[in-house]
Amino acid sequence: MRILLLGFGNIGRAFCEIVEAKTPVLREKYGIECRFVGIATRSRGCATDPNGIDVETLLKRESSTGRLDTPSSGRRRVTLSASEMVSEMDYDLLVVCTSTTIQSPEIPKAYIRGGLERGKDVITSNKGPLFLAYRELNDLAAERGTLFLFEAAVMGGTPFFSFARHSLVGSEIISCEGVMNTTSNYILDLMVGGSSFDDALLDARRKGFAEADPTFDLEGWDSAVKASIIAQVLMGAPPVSLENMNVQGINKIKTGLLLEAARSGGAIRLVSRVEREEGSVSITVRPEVLPPSNPLSRVHGATNGVLFLTDTLGEIFVAGGGIGPKHTAYSMLRDLIEIAVSRKAR
Amino acid sequence: MRILLLGFGNIGRAFCEIVEAKTPVLREKYGIECRFVGIATRSRGCATDPNGIDVETLLKRESSTGRLDTPSSGRRRVTLSASEMVSEMDYDLLVVCTSTTIQSPEIPKAYIRGGLERGKDVITSNKGPLFLAYRELNDLAAERGTLFLFEAAVMGGTPFFSFARHSLVGSEIISCEGVMNTTSNYILDLMVGGSSFDDALLDARRKGFAEADPTFDLEGWDSAVKASIIAQVLMGAPPVSLENMNVQGINKIKTGLLLEAARSGGAIRLVSRVEREEGSVSITVRPEVLPPSNPLSRVHGATNGVLFLTDTLGEIFVAGGGIGPKHTAYSMLRDLIEIAVSRKAR
Repeated sequence: MRILLLGFGNIGRAFCEIVEAKTPVLREKYGIECRFVGIATRSRGCATDPNGIDVETLLKRESSTGRLDTPSSGRRRVTLSASEMVSEMDYDLLVVCTSTTIQSPEIPKAYIRGGLERGKDVITSNKGPLFLAYRELNDLAAERGTLFLFEAAVMGGTPFFSFARHSLVGSEIISCEGVMNTTSNYILDLMVGGSSFDDALLDARRKGFAEADPTFDLEGWDSAVKASIIAQVLMGAPPVSLENMNVQGINKIKTGLLLEAARSGGAIRLVSRVEREEGSVSITVRPEVLPPSNPLSRVHGATNGVLFLTDTLGEIFVAGGGIGPKHTAYSMLRDLIEIAVSRKAR
Repeated sequence: MRILLLGFGNIGRAFCEIVEAKTPVLREKYGIECRFVGIATRSRGCATDPNGIDVETLLKRESSTGRLDTPSSGRRRVTLSASEMVSEMDYDLLVVCTSTTIQSPEIPKAYIRGGLERGKDVITSNKGPLFLAYRELNDLAAERGTLFLFEAAVMGGTPFFSFARHSLVGSEIISCEGVMNTTSNYILDLMVGGSSFDDALLDARRKGFAEADPTFDLEGWDSAVKASIIAQVLMGAPPVSLENMNVQGINKIKTGLLLEAARSGGAIRLVSRVEREEGSVSITVRPEVLPPSNPLSRVHGATNGVLFLTDTLGEIFVAGGGIGPKHTAYSMLRDLIEIAVSRKAR
């Protein structure tokens, strides 16, 4: 399986590492041989090798020269752009984990479209293109007979879409409520423990659980984007713009309310809620007082949890703690294996 | 997809019902058309129809005559045995949900072998054959290029094997601990609430959560069988006999200990624990004091929960409440869809 990887930040590197570490399992258990034929970055050039890039050498070169491409000797440097690589190179699987923000989803969306249009399988960890245009991309994949998977895009290391697709196949998912923003959840827990909001945020930053600008997380927009993606993927809802969503974050939460919920054995959580209603899907994001009987009240710190309500099994709860690049990278590896197994049957 | 169904008790009927109820979804979403070409019972005869049995008519006939077969008029009644049906009929999928106990796994095992040997896909909800001979059956399925699935056999309506197979694919499952016996868990909760063991057992019986002879559940053997199946399926462990397992149930539990655990915020749970150790797999079943941080301490009443420890995602927790025939039947439907989708690719 020849992989074209776009994005070589924390997640891209972690993906190379896990593919390398899992080589024996991929080979022996699934008969998969992977090689990276292209790796692209936005500002540090690209590397290509149809026989497979030696990632270790690449990392050394990057740390010494600051770039991925080999220094040109004699003739001018030829660096392909990511979109040229997508449209011109020979590869089987396109992996898009560029570090784009939700505000600029058009670029990764174009990469994904480019791959799908050429009949390539595509994996992404980017929320943006899914939020903007899940159905368009999914329809294109279906039309071209390829797979478009994105387990890593929502709740990094907590299996979600694969769970719905495989373990709940044939079920109707009536609603889905989740604790999906780890920054907010971590801060809420610290506040219950006695921290002020500002101190809790500072702690979250120090531990790497909060972005430099945490507004998007704390005002609930990250949770809203995830909820909208879930509504589109699991319930066929149309995309919505952030302005049209009913979203409340934890930025105005009062410590008194948190303590009151804790005293009664429950907890306040920032809940993303997606529910089927007659002919439509409703999405709400807000802090909710959850009783102790709701398993989401037990999702602590920088972890995620989702409670599905289904027509076949009633309530099903899934929770995981993996939010780092390694966990996100595993979710992409998971998708890779599903794609490789399906390719054999094509 | 022509289905041969062995067993027409609560689970077999619920399976017919869910296949009927989900006909539109199966047809429109997956292109699957199901018909039951044979239904067998141990003592109430069998029904066959290559064009598909009308299950509603069958239920009426059974309730008026006590049998599945049509009364013979003029000539002697010809009733096929289940094993004749397995070896002689034309069908695509064999579904084995006979009501056999764990002590007599040879009969359903023979049915399953019979189907697999003929290259048929097989689904079962029976623990016995898995406990006795998972690897033998799985190897046979692999050799014949068929699928052998059994989501319903362990924790009825809590997705377990499909979760490990799809959502954790490529991961190493290091350990797996679970609350897997609903009878025991229900009784423990009532005891914490003030009931005596005997009163709690009586209540469990009234609600249908306990068998007429609950020894197998309360002494931990049911949990041990499930743990052994998990050890075989997920970790390649060999089968073990019950006598060689280290098993302790809840039948000698003291109320004082339960209350002590509850006061500290945690709970005592009957835990099935399966762990990889160097070159082997250890299985323990016993009541354990769990701290509140262990999500299994929050698995209440007649529900199930499993905590996986993986090399890729750390801890992942799955919990569900579905333990009735409908939930078990859904798990078989889930397997049916996986098989139908895979058949299209063969």
